[in-house]
Amino acid sequence: MQHKSFSDMPCPVARGLERVGEWWSMMILRDAFYGLSRFDEFQKSLKIAPNMLTRRLAGLVEDGLLERKLYCEKPPRYGYHLTQSGRDFWPVLLTLVEWGSKHYSPEGKIIELRDSLSGAAVTPVLVDAATGTPITRARHQIVPGPAATAGVLQRFANHPQAPDESETDAHR
Amino acid sequence: MQHKSFSDMPCPVARGLERVGEWWSMMILRDAFYGLSRFDEFQKSLKIAPNMLTRRLAGLVEDGLLERKLYCEKPPRYGYHLTQSGRDFWPVLLTLVEWGSKHYSPEGKIIELRDSLSGAAVTPVLVDAATGTPITRARHQIVPGPAATAGVLQRFANHPQAPDESETDAHR
Repeated sequence: MQHKSFSDMPCPVARGLERVGEWWSMMILRDAFYGLSRFDEFQKSLKIAPNMLTRRLAGLVEDGLLERKLYCEKPPRYGYHLTQSGRDFWPVLLTLVEWGSKHYSPEGKIIELRDSLSGAAVTPVLVDAATGTPITRARHQIVPGPAATAGVLQRFANHPQAPDESETDAHR
Repeated sequence: MQHKSFSDMPCPVARGLERVGEWWSMMILRDAFYGLSRFDEFQKSLKIAPNMLTRRLAGLVEDGLLERKLYCEKPPRYGYHLTQSGRDFWPVLLTLVEWGSKHYSPEGKIIELRDSLSGAAVTPVLVDAATGTPITRARHQIVPGPAATAGVLQRFANHPQAPDESETDAHR
């Protein structure tokens, strides 16, 4: 372990990062979404050391993001496939793609999202599922939920979030 | 460095992870969104070793996610504040919160997003900014963009993405 465990922290970001908060794990998930499933495919794609790849795949299986499926009986060979939890990680990768493209791809978009029905390039944005209202820091806030611990409540009491300054400025 | 550099990879996920793909960096950003800015506030919140915190803050400043601002002249003391790139990371954190809450918070939501106008709890979902269509793996695909390299084109040619099996199943 290169870090203390985040699993015990009462925070979904920390608990999520405990599962994927390592460069390789997220790159393996990326490749799984690209359709890769075999050990040698991941290795070739990521140029990752075999022992590291073995460890990361085992971790992702243990944490329930990937599942092993036999694809060859003799000799026994397993592929790694996204579980429901793994598939639910897609929005995280998409927002990471948007952010990485915007700030760290001066040459233009290396990859982009496409609507396979219309053929149009798509910019994904977060909205309120119930109303369709775009999520902004001027209007939306993270607040303690029903399962907040005393420590979480204390944290929010100590640091009430200010709205995004840049967004607030726009309304002055 | 604990890993090879992802910056050279022609992939916005890799380039994004190069900046934040370390547990502490993302937790520091989380705290910055919560309104923390001072060294001792981050340290108290994260229980992180001072030398590690110094290194991570310097990295986030260097990569343009945080900027230092003098808040005390004698003695000189600096706070760390989100830049535009840092603020643009918010959707990544929100999707991570959703995913972590759904799969790794059996006790219920520790934190949640709230609409400060209506007071309602909000579930954020990704939609097409132009049309409002929800993003699904059944309908949307990642494809090479205008700046795709030969290697990226080759990768997609080798592994055409299948639509999400579970979503496809629903339509059979």
